[in-house]
Amino acid sequence: MTVRVGILGATGAVGQRFIQLLDDHPTFELAAVTASEASAGKTYREAAKWRVDTPIPDDVAEMEVVETDPSAVPDDVDLLFSSLPSDVAAAVEPPFLEAGYVVSSNSSNDRMAEDVPLTIPEINPDHLGLIDVQRDERGWDGALVKNPNCSTITMVPTLAALDRFGLERAHIATLQAVSGAGYSGVTSMEIIDNAIPHIGGEEEKMETESRKLLGSFDGAELSLHGADVSASCNRIPTLDGHLENVFAELSEDPSAEAVREAMHDQPSADLHSSPDQLIKVFDDSEPERPQPRLDRTYANGMGIVAGGVQTTTDGVKYNCLAHNTIRGAAGASILNGELLVEDGWI
Amino acid sequence: MTVRVGILGATGAVGQRFIQLLDDHPTFELAAVTASEASAGKTYREAAKWRVDTPIPDDVAEMEVVETDPSAVPDDVDLLFSSLPSDVAAAVEPPFLEAGYVVSSNSSNDRMAEDVPLTIPEINPDHLGLIDVQRDERGWDGALVKNPNCSTITMVPTLAALDRFGLERAHIATLQAVSGAGYSGVTSMEIIDNAIPHIGGEEEKMETESRKLLGSFDGAELSLHGADVSASCNRIPTLDGHLENVFAELSEDPSAEAVREAMHDQPSADLHSSPDQLIKVFDDSEPERPQPRLDRTYANGMGIVAGGVQTTTDGVKYNCLAHNTIRGAAGASILNGELLVEDGWI
Amino acid sequence: MTVRVGILGATGAVGQRFIQLLDDHPTFELAAVTASEASAGKTYREAAKWRVDTPIPDDVAEMEVVETDPSAVPDDVDLLFSSLPSDVAAAVEPPFLEAGYVVSSNSSNDRMAEDVPLTIPEINPDHLGLIDVQRDERGWDGALVKNPNCSTITMVPTLAALDRFGLERAHIATLQAVSGAGYSGVTSMEIIDNAIPHIGGEEEKMETESRKLLGSFDGAELSLHGADVSASCNRIPTLDGHLENVFAELSEDPSAEAVREAMHDQPSADLHSSPDQLIKVFDDSEPERPQPRLDRTYANGMGIVAGGVQTTTDGVKYNCLAHNTIRGAAGASILNGELLVEDGWI
Amino acid sequence: MTVRVGILGATGAVGQRFIQLLDDHPTFELAAVTASEASAGKTYREAAKWRVDTPIPDDVAEMEVVETDPSAVPDDVDLLFSSLPSDVAAAVEPPFLEAGYVVSSNSSNDRMAEDVPLTIPEINPDHLGLIDVQRDERGWDGALVKNPNCSTITMVPTLAALDRFGLERAHIATLQAVSGAGYSGVTSMEIIDNAIPHIGGEEEKMETESRKLLGSFDGAELSLHGADVSASCNRIPTLDGHLENVFAELSEDPSAEAVREAMHDQPSADLHSSPDQLIKVFDDSEPERPQPRLDRTYANGMGIVAGGVQTTTDGVKYNCLAHNTIRGAAGASILNGELLVEDGWI
Repeated sequence: MTVRVGILGATGAVGQRFIQLLDDHPTFELAAVTASEASAGKTYREAAKWRVDTPIPDDVAEMEVVETDPSAVPDDVDLLFSSLPSDVAAAVEPPFLEAGYVVSSNSSNDRMAEDVPLTIPEINPDHLGLIDVQRDERGWDGALVKNPNCSTITMVPTLAALDRFGLERAHIATLQAVSGAGYSGVTSMEIIDNAIPHIGGEEEKMETESRKLLGSFDGAELSLHGADVSASCNRIPTLDGHLENVFAELSEDPSAEAVREAMHDQPSADLHSSPDQLIKVFDDSEPERPQPRLDRTYANGMGIVAGGVQTTTDGVKYNCLAHNTIRGAAGASILNGELLVEDGWI
Repeated sequence: MTVRVGILGATGAVGQRFIQLLDDHPTFELAAVTASEASAGKTYREAAKWRVDTPIPDDVAEMEVVETDPSAVPDDVDLLFSSLPSDVAAAVEPPFLEAGYVVSSNSSNDRMAEDVPLTIPEINPDHLGLIDVQRDERGWDGALVKNPNCSTITMVPTLAALDRFGLERAHIATLQAVSGAGYSGVTSMEIIDNAIPHIGGEEEKMETESRKLLGSFDGAELSLHGADVSASCNRIPTLDGHLENVFAELSEDPSAEAVREAMHDQPSADLHSSPDQLIKVFDDSEPERPQPRLDRTYANGMGIVAGGVQTTTDGVKYNCLAHNTIRGAAGASILNGELLVEDGWI
Repeated sequence: MTVRVGILGATGAVGQRFIQLLDDHPTFELAAVTASEASAGKTYREAAKWRVDTPIPDDVAEMEVVETDPSAVPDDVDLLFSSLPSDVAAAVEPPFLEAGYVVSSNSSNDRMAEDVPLTIPEINPDHLGLIDVQRDERGWDGALVKNPNCSTITMVPTLAALDRFGLERAHIATLQAVSGAGYSGVTSMEIIDNAIPHIGGEEEKMETESRKLLGSFDGAELSLHGADVSASCNRIPTLDGHLENVFAELSEDPSAEAVREAMHDQPSADLHSSPDQLIKVFDDSEPERPQPRLDRTYANGMGIVAGGVQTTTDGVKYNCLAHNTIRGAAGASILNGELLVEDGWI
Repeated sequence: MTVRVGILGATGAVGQRFIQLLDDHPTFELAAVTASEASAGKTYREAAKWRVDTPIPDDVAEMEVVETDPSAVPDDVDLLFSSLPSDVAAAVEPPFLEAGYVVSSNSSNDRMAEDVPLTIPEINPDHLGLIDVQRDERGWDGALVKNPNCSTITMVPTLAALDRFGLERAHIATLQAVSGAGYSGVTSMEIIDNAIPHIGGEEEKMETESRKLLGSFDGAELSLHGADVSASCNRIPTLDGHLENVFAELSEDPSAEAVREAMHDQPSADLHSSPDQLIKVFDDSEPERPQPRLDRTYANGMGIVAGGVQTTTDGVKYNCLAHNTIRGAAGASILNGELLVEDGWI
């Protein structure tokens, strides 16, 4: 089975990562790349300033870029990936949905909307059921699915694993890579020999998205998880890979070993891009792991790596890490696309 | 008034910082520099591989290094600063104390001993009274005073300020500079494009030392503060300046503004090396501060800088920063020395 | 004597450095700060995003920013410093010169014009005589003086010292700091764990400006120096300080010691901002110096530091270093301003 | 055909790279790993602190480490790779050669010995003929072949390509990665926000080894190439990949295009680890390449990448780059091993 896919905003940093990850994908066949009006009509090679560490796939290089408009995208495209800036996405996604396209979007707009599924396929695949609610309410033929922010996705699989012990509260400090801000988002003058303890909007995303992802869907309505989540976000001089320190307050009193087992046993999904082992867990013998440069490519950048699990007086503390531009962005949208196909929405 | 001082372990990284900070000190006159047997008899210039960013003071350069032994240090030296590795210090400090020297030590041994004052002059100067207990118990003529670890000292002044709102629990994540591990402690292969979520022994130091510093001394015995402290320590690619994210649980419910005021009003000490304003607080208009490279030299590296104060459901979160090799090491010992003089122990 | 000065383009990165360096200057009193129309009317504090590592001087913070136009600058300003982008400077400097202002400019336009003095006060102060030629030819009441590019200024004092041995050819490789590209010129994604062997236009600047600086002025015409200069320019992950490897072909055959002496003896100028010792020279005992982080602040950032001098079969090789945004930009213009005053042009 | 190989000094940084590169090698089967006496008897997993970015191959992990002594290595091992420190290698290699082993060594001792071939298979494979001379003179049954230093190997293929235009002189500045100094060779305090213009012994290696590699062997004696080579070596904050700026003086006067063609046409070798295209050349449209992080993995780290070719008044200048721990160390020795097999020495 082949699914024809398109990329909205294909020339940007995440758009390039989509193209890299879709190369040789067994199911998805890239059939359309869109960009702003200024790029329409050019070949992709001309339109994009390619910066990914593997060459542009030859066939994509010669593909014609079209405008980000439903009328410009072929009708036989079944699935669109979107990595537009959130203000652009807020304006552009609705027309595609009205026109009947299924959109798997990495853009931050509408993530918390009550009728928009925010999904990590290994964690809350059932939330896709919200698509029915969404179609009812909005009258769309298409469907809109979102994946969470890169810093949220890094920790949520570990929090899901902890929830069997009664997750009540989580305090998280992040050490985030510069690529999360886009190619030009952090200047070298800002970050060499430095760290920046603030990333605009990031803390709120972590605090709200995580409660939605861990929430429950009864077929009609989604309830947020009751845990209280509080985050402090820092930018540090790493290229890729978000590292996070988590302090979790639990109602039960598990041992560090029980927590490691719960993380290790957290099920993965049976999808092409899902890791065999969702969470790789380092034990006490390697307390200095995970580290961004050494662990960000685990499972081709789609895995979560945890370590440093220790009990505290009110629960546990530990560290977790994921590749922010693969598992945390383009790879997350592609994985949601795979789930949409698997569950028959496409 | 002039106090003749010596430095135990004067050729190492912290030893060099002592020499830099003591240059032009109004009260302390450097009269002795000690090192291992191999260096004894050499001039300081010959013995030390000088790496501080200002030149060796001329008079110190020509000073003769003596062995780290009471018999080698002139009797008229009133105060010794120590920055020896903790295992060396544990062996070497007692003979000096028996010989009657007053020692202000940055070494980590004995910091938690019941009869050893662990002091930050602006926070718990009264703990110096433990010296009487110490002399009673150990039969020393001298006196041993310790300053806390660099990561502890960064946060404790802010926690002290918060305690008026009932500090019950603190979760802290640190982003620590490589200089904290000594000149060769972190290799470039380890830290370029990377972060390391573990520093051996550091978390425990933060968790125990902070409770002693915030504890109360009734003239006979010291009670630890009741707050629960839990830390996760990370090394990042910065040269100097530890940045920390603090999540504090409070019994009261202050506004962010009230917390900023409490920090701003936290009193400094009337000592030469104390800042006029102990804690500099950035408000909401500059949420991206403090930053290590921009803020570590506040008050000549002796100040604390805080920012990003926000309320949470159970208290507040905020960030704080201090220069780890000045306020967090050599400067801390010198400041304790100034307090010892001020309070008449010398 | 007090000279009232203004800064054209005062809110940019170099403009901020001008303000920092002019604070407490014994002769120059800052009387006007200009910026683009959008900033005119604001206070300097409002108009500038201040990023220098010392606070904005209080009096400057409250100064009103005026438009970069002769009619907006008070008539009693005697000297203008300019750090505008070269295309803006090319349009804006002439009206000021026609209006009679003396302009000491760091902008790269017109540096190679035959009637514009390009000066390093310690090296070719006599080239200021070109002002007479300039006034004759252009009919200006004012005067335009340029300082060279940051990478040029780093090596030229050492080449001048070598010229006593007959400088015939120089090959230079640069290791340049990111601040040379302006605050946002180099992104962190470009430079972490990387180097970039190209800086647009930089090589040509080094090759032509150096020959003008080392050239001779006979009172009427300036002859370029006959040496052949060839450069390769690299950007590396340092914040400040350009390091350069020079291979010089000489007609004579001096020893390394003779070359070091020539550099050490290269005279400085008797101006406020000139170092006492123009070139600090490391000898064989410290072959690993100069280094950007350790040596860029020599002489408050206005000195040149050299080292690693070794003979080759056709001359010598050595390394040199200067602070690119002080000696290489704002400081260079201020120093030219001091020379203009000293020589009576103001 | 399978060749049983061993690694002398298998637990060090280069030793680990050997193991990584030999995994899945079509011809070489790892049969022995040696280390110092302290490690003998342990499994490789126990003995090595593994730091390479792929896991230890399972079979190697369980292999028993033996002492670095001919009596401890099985007789049926045909080829030994060596990456011992040069002083250790100088003592240890001769006994292995006397015992009849063929040794392909990355250690720097004996590289310039008159009867030891120093080879890059694509450049001077005929120099292997020196083995006959070596056996005659030394009475060895074995054979010793060396590969050059990492900084030498980066430029020599490009110099070989240039030699058709009459290479007379080369000035080279290097920007070398920290991995070249070994895992702990460069501390983070030395190199963050810094560069070091000196690497002990490196310049001389580049100046002498290159003339031997480009020299001619008449079957009996090797003549050094007549070109004069002068190098300045710098350490910069990159992890892997040496970048070099070359200024070459030529007797002919080729265009930049002719030089690019010569480099592009420089033949590779028909060996497993040789790239299809030995030198990848960027043209004028991408003057900012090659860059360490973007280009070091070209041809699995075994290729050379060049760019920025421009004519000068006496020849050309250009930049070149290679992966220092693959093409510049372990990969170079393995490639020499492949040549030894191909030419029938094993």
